[in-house]
Amino acid sequence: MLNIGVALIGTGFMGKTHALAWRNVKAVMGDVPTPVLTVLCDTPLPQAERFAGQFGFARATDDWQAMLADPAVQVVSITTPNRMHHAMALAALAAGKHVWCEKPMALTLEQAEEMEAAARAAGVVTMVGYNYIKNPAFTHAQRLIAEGAIGRLVQFRGWVDEDYQADPALPWSWRAMIAEAGLGALGDIGSHLVSMAHGLMGPIASVMADMQTIHETRPLPDGSGSGVVENEDAASVLLRFASGAQGSMVISRSAWGRKSRLGFEVHGTTGMITFDQERMNELQLYQNLGPMAEQGFKTILTGPAHPPYGAFCPAPGHQLGFNEMKIIECAALLRAIAGGPKAHPDFTDALAYERAIHAMAQSAREERRVSL
Amino acid sequence: MLNIGVALIGTGFMGKTHALAWRNVKAVMGDVPTPVLTVLCDTPLPQAERFAGQFGFARATDDWQAMLADPAVQVVSITTPNRMHHAMALAALAAGKHVWCEKPMALTLEQAEEMEAAARAAGVVTMVGYNYIKNPAFTHAQRLIAEGAIGRLVQFRGWVDEDYQADPALPWSWRAMIAEAGLGALGDIGSHLVSMAHGLMGPIASVMADMQTIHETRPLPDGSGSGVVENEDAASVLLRFASGAQGSMVISRSAWGRKSRLGFEVHGTTGMITFDQERMNELQLYQNLGPMAEQGFKTILTGPAHPPYGAFCPAPGHQLGFNEMKIIECAALLRAIAGGPKAHPDFTDALAYERAIHAMAQSAREERRVSL
Amino acid sequence: MLNIGVALIGTGFMGKTHALAWRNVKAVMGDVPTPVLTVLCDTPLPQAERFAGQFGFARATDDWQAMLADPAVQVVSITTPNRMHHAMALAALAAGKHVWCEKPMALTLEQAEEMEAAARAAGVVTMVGYNYIKNPAFTHAQRLIAEGAIGRLVQFRGWVDEDYQADPALPWSWRAMIAEAGLGALGDIGSHLVSMAHGLMGPIASVMADMQTIHETRPLPDGSGSGVVENEDAASVLLRFASGAQGSMVISRSAWGRKSRLGFEVHGTTGMITFDQERMNELQLYQNLGPMAEQGFKTILTGPAHPPYGAFCPAPGHQLGFNEMKIIECAALLRAIAGGPKAHPDFTDALAYERAIHAMAQSAREERRVSL
Amino acid sequence: MLNIGVALIGTGFMGKTHALAWRNVKAVMGDVPTPVLTVLCDTPLPQAERFAGQFGFARATDDWQAMLADPAVQVVSITTPNRMHHAMALAALAAGKHVWCEKPMALTLEQAEEMEAAARAAGVVTMVGYNYIKNPAFTHAQRLIAEGAIGRLVQFRGWVDEDYQADPALPWSWRAMIAEAGLGALGDIGSHLVSMAHGLMGPIASVMADMQTIHETRPLPDGSGSGVVENEDAASVLLRFASGAQGSMVISRSAWGRKSRLGFEVHGTTGMITFDQERMNELQLYQNLGPMAEQGFKTILTGPAHPPYGAFCPAPGHQLGFNEMKIIECAALLRAIAGGPKAHPDFTDALAYERAIHAMAQSAREERRVSL
Repeated sequence: MLNIGVALIGTGFMGKTHALAWRNVKAVMGDVPTPVLTVLCDTPLPQAERFAGQFGFARATDDWQAMLADPAVQVVSITTPNRMHHAMALAALAAGKHVWCEKPMALTLEQAEEMEAAARAAGVVTMVGYNYIKNPAFTHAQRLIAEGAIGRLVQFRGWVDEDYQADPALPWSWRAMIAEAGLGALGDIGSHLVSMAHGLMGPIASVMADMQTIHETRPLPDGSGSGVVENEDAASVLLRFASGAQGSMVISRSAWGRKSRLGFEVHGTTGMITFDQERMNELQLYQNLGPMAEQGFKTILTGPAHPPYGAFCPAPGHQLGFNEMKIIECAALLRAIAGGPKAHPDFTDALAYERAIHAMAQSAREERRVSL
Repeated sequence: MLNIGVALIGTGFMGKTHALAWRNVKAVMGDVPTPVLTVLCDTPLPQAERFAGQFGFARATDDWQAMLADPAVQVVSITTPNRMHHAMALAALAAGKHVWCEKPMALTLEQAEEMEAAARAAGVVTMVGYNYIKNPAFTHAQRLIAEGAIGRLVQFRGWVDEDYQADPALPWSWRAMIAEAGLGALGDIGSHLVSMAHGLMGPIASVMADMQTIHETRPLPDGSGSGVVENEDAASVLLRFASGAQGSMVISRSAWGRKSRLGFEVHGTTGMITFDQERMNELQLYQNLGPMAEQGFKTILTGPAHPPYGAFCPAPGHQLGFNEMKIIECAALLRAIAGGPKAHPDFTDALAYERAIHAMAQSAREERRVSL
Repeated sequence: MLNIGVALIGTGFMGKTHALAWRNVKAVMGDVPTPVLTVLCDTPLPQAERFAGQFGFARATDDWQAMLADPAVQVVSITTPNRMHHAMALAALAAGKHVWCEKPMALTLEQAEEMEAAARAAGVVTMVGYNYIKNPAFTHAQRLIAEGAIGRLVQFRGWVDEDYQADPALPWSWRAMIAEAGLGALGDIGSHLVSMAHGLMGPIASVMADMQTIHETRPLPDGSGSGVVENEDAASVLLRFASGAQGSMVISRSAWGRKSRLGFEVHGTTGMITFDQERMNELQLYQNLGPMAEQGFKTILTGPAHPPYGAFCPAPGHQLGFNEMKIIECAALLRAIAGGPKAHPDFTDALAYERAIHAMAQSAREERRVSL
Repeated sequence: MLNIGVALIGTGFMGKTHALAWRNVKAVMGDVPTPVLTVLCDTPLPQAERFAGQFGFARATDDWQAMLADPAVQVVSITTPNRMHHAMALAALAAGKHVWCEKPMALTLEQAEEMEAAARAAGVVTMVGYNYIKNPAFTHAQRLIAEGAIGRLVQFRGWVDEDYQADPALPWSWRAMIAEAGLGALGDIGSHLVSMAHGLMGPIASVMADMQTIHETRPLPDGSGSGVVENEDAASVLLRFASGAQGSMVISRSAWGRKSRLGFEVHGTTGMITFDQERMNELQLYQNLGPMAEQGFKTILTGPAHPPYGAFCPAPGHQLGFNEMKIIECAALLRAIAGGPKAHPDFTDALAYERAIHAMAQSAREERRVSL
């Protein structure tokens, strides 16, 4: 199989997950092209150099625009702060590179639309970092649904809660500014939940939402007073799907005790499936089968029967981790580059997710149902 | 303490829970008046007689109106089908009896309002059967909130799901008719959730809801075709509380696998409390206290430290059951009759719950936010 | 059906559970004889009188021997401290009464043997208070095993832990004295676990045990120093069953956080069943059936499909409580008195359980395997 | 920091985990020497070559003895079948290489003792693959105990269950032969539990065990009849620790439904800690602190407050996986090679674990308590 030259921009939380994915994907999967860790970009340059050494990239740079001109680079990972995704992705696409961009695509829907159009025009492979839907537990849920294991789908319940903005004493930061961060909880974590809802239920037809800024101001870091929080800490949403199913979502970045509580219930006419990311190796399945006295929710522990779990470990129930979902995502990208199935979710898929979260925000602002 | 003459109308699901409560309340609590099981009413008469023997009532009748004239009767339990509550309660109040009525109070809001006005005019003790809020786990959650254990309340999440109408093959019944049953899932089970939301968060200011009839028709029992389901199987609701907090509710009588899943999350600025009725002896509490490395949700098993658990059992964690909550409810009623604190929820409290569920139905029908 | 005159000795923890069972059994079950609450015995007399009023007994006495001469009494509940069971049961049997005795039967194995022989000679109905094996979840486990749902049984794992003696600061009491309490954790709670093991796996062939007195002394209540704890706080046991299966038990009355953790795993050649009393309305079942990708432990919530749950509540998952198991036990006793199936566990069954716990204690003292 | 030349023998389950650890450890941890993936050894050679390409090793070989003469190799990972550990480790030590060997060290205790002596004589760094005790949840439990969070330790309960030998229809294999596999469940999985017991409670003083071969024969793969299973499917053990604490272990490779159920309870005089590997990112902590009404087991989700979780992910509760524990293990090895703290568990530590499992087997065979 071919070699693929990789550039990575960013060395933060997501930057490291991309670096680990690039380092591992071939060793884990075997049947993918070999990524060649070509250049790592960050600022200032010494930081880029330090992480290039740690992550095993051949070179470091602080000039992402020059880097995009390098013919040795075939695919670019964009893991910078959200406000930079738009310019970097457009430039990478213009340079003919494949692009793996973290979510959300951009601060505004208009930017995301521009990126998606550019991706279609460029004809390269794109992918957006919706790693949670790569979990073998999630894809098994999709398989169960496709096989009719729970009948016709009638309801979706989704939740995504964390507590990284729960403490009122937490200082004000760029996260609170629309111009820097865009949406709040909806963009940060709500979009992951939308990717799940899409993958399970199909497209969302309309939304009706409420938003809430729980902590309206936060202390400025320099102690000089307090700054306004411009975006939402929490949102609640009524959903109608194109299929006719209904549902709801609840989203909070200020939910004490929740660390990565991202999950769903899918209600069908013959059963139910539920999942929660805080126990990401478990899937709950109820089927109206057999005698009532033996019915119950089954806790299915993922294992080799749930591909591609077996690429990581031949023994069931041994537990995959968050970082390993990024490897599955990376493998899908590499296979698409090598001519395999379309990468999912690409910029077009991801634009649909972002349309949904912006529609939720609009619905809340305008206090009316918004169709998609 | 005094003796109280009790009449019970109905011998079904709720009739039996009332009978058990009347039989047990004195033995469990000690410090309440002694109920005297005077007369049991049902139709036909032989059924009433059979259950009077089984439940230990002195007499049986099939004539509830005559029964209400009996001076030996001081309090009446009304556990008949929903459509009969209105007439029976009004007659009992007119006869000067204390009334313990099952929920929902009536089929329509107008009927409920009439009952509430009559109750206030009669000056007797009334109570509506919201047993779940009598659980020591629930009242402990209220106590924790009142003590500030989780700070200012900012969000409520509620759910109530059962699967008694999940099977599409289930025959059509009176439950499907508005004229017989009134609201569907909202009235049957949603009102319990509203009672919890009120008890934890205070009054609801406005609602925005969606309703869904999942099974639009059902086979007629006689095999002659199918009947229309007129009321909702499921509902999803956005909530705004008078306090400024927000929240949501999801409700379904067609949720496979859920048997009595009635629960909540209350999000505060310093912690969270959650509960689920399917594990009714457990309360989950997270507090932002102590080192982060030791923070987590505590699973509190109810025990004598959570009154009135100790009246049932001196040993913690031994598990109370559903029927025992009805005993706690009955004790509150008896104490109010004996001049103790006001029974809660009385017809006035319960009317507020019913206003909320009717506002949800109205919101869904009119596709707009409805204020309360 | 006939009426049965009931006498109850004792008004403590277990006394109250018996009283509630006697009051409820007819109302719940319907098809049992009607208990007539004839006389309540306790000392001093005013206490007996107070509880006779509360529990609804016709008369009170402080003279249990005189009471046993009363021809109106047909069955006697013995719920006094353990050291009094022996004399009271022998006297009741001698008077030709049916006997419902709390466990353990006696302080020593010799006493228990004498009681069992007397019961056989008297030809009356006897029952010992092993309420946990009356749980519909437990009897459903038995039914599943009998139907071959998990194949041939190969292993048993049992545990029973509480924390009522966990605190080193707890004062010394009669519980610590062999002459007053007999065995410690083995007798108090271990015998319940033995009753489960018997019911699931059949007779125990031999045991090998360790015992541990975790808190060797305790402060005397009068502050005058400390008293010696003579019996065990904890025990661990290797089991061999007559069937050839093996297993283990762990038992502690000093296990912080455990309130009523009594449970088991039964391993079969085609599946596993597990249960824990702290979630007494749930049974876990794994079967090696269907595709591996869909296998998992099912959480079965008890309901009307698990008799006699439906006698308490027609809706599944609504939760039975600890006290309600005592009602099921009481119904079995009444049915046996009325000529139905033998009450289980009677004095003969219970003697086998007590033999097992005494063999465990002997094994630990003598540091050798003890056969039964 | 220095570079370290790595050789890996074996490409199976554990071979892949070592390869992934070597590939990741620097990228994850930063502050460790840089492993240079020098040579991969397996048979036949084409397999070695294929995996060298996949795992990123510079060269492949099928001659492990020649490989050990290579001065470019400084550390050797031994992940071959158990019966080969002994010869390979001795040769590697003789060649002056650092050794990372999978567990169990050897088939017999004598072999393990010889290896340990050789390691001490060689003066190199050794490590044995007890990855589960590298979990941040486990090391946090150790820290809590050391800080006195649960008082004096009084009991240990351990379990380790899988179902890879549960199916009676599974064909006979080398696993069933003492000469090929050594001990059965004790060696395969029991030794992991021993490593946990040691890490939490200190050394084991004596054991009393039962063993059980659940499936005494298995069908031969060629259909020609059945082969005898020579080693144990399950074991149960009573433990006494040098500290005076007591405890137990239960171990099965034939426990249907258990996939990686490895866990413990540690009972202290003021609290309890429990853990289960099937939910490896959770630790349960109960402390007798504060009002009884607020006491309960806390579910602590691991996060950056539990080092080195933060090296993998800056966000709590995002879930580490099984393979990532191997990276933590690898980092400890590299740090020891670079002159940091002693690698743990080295051959001396691991010998103590293996002594314990062989003592258990001996105890079961000889039906007597065996001291260590």
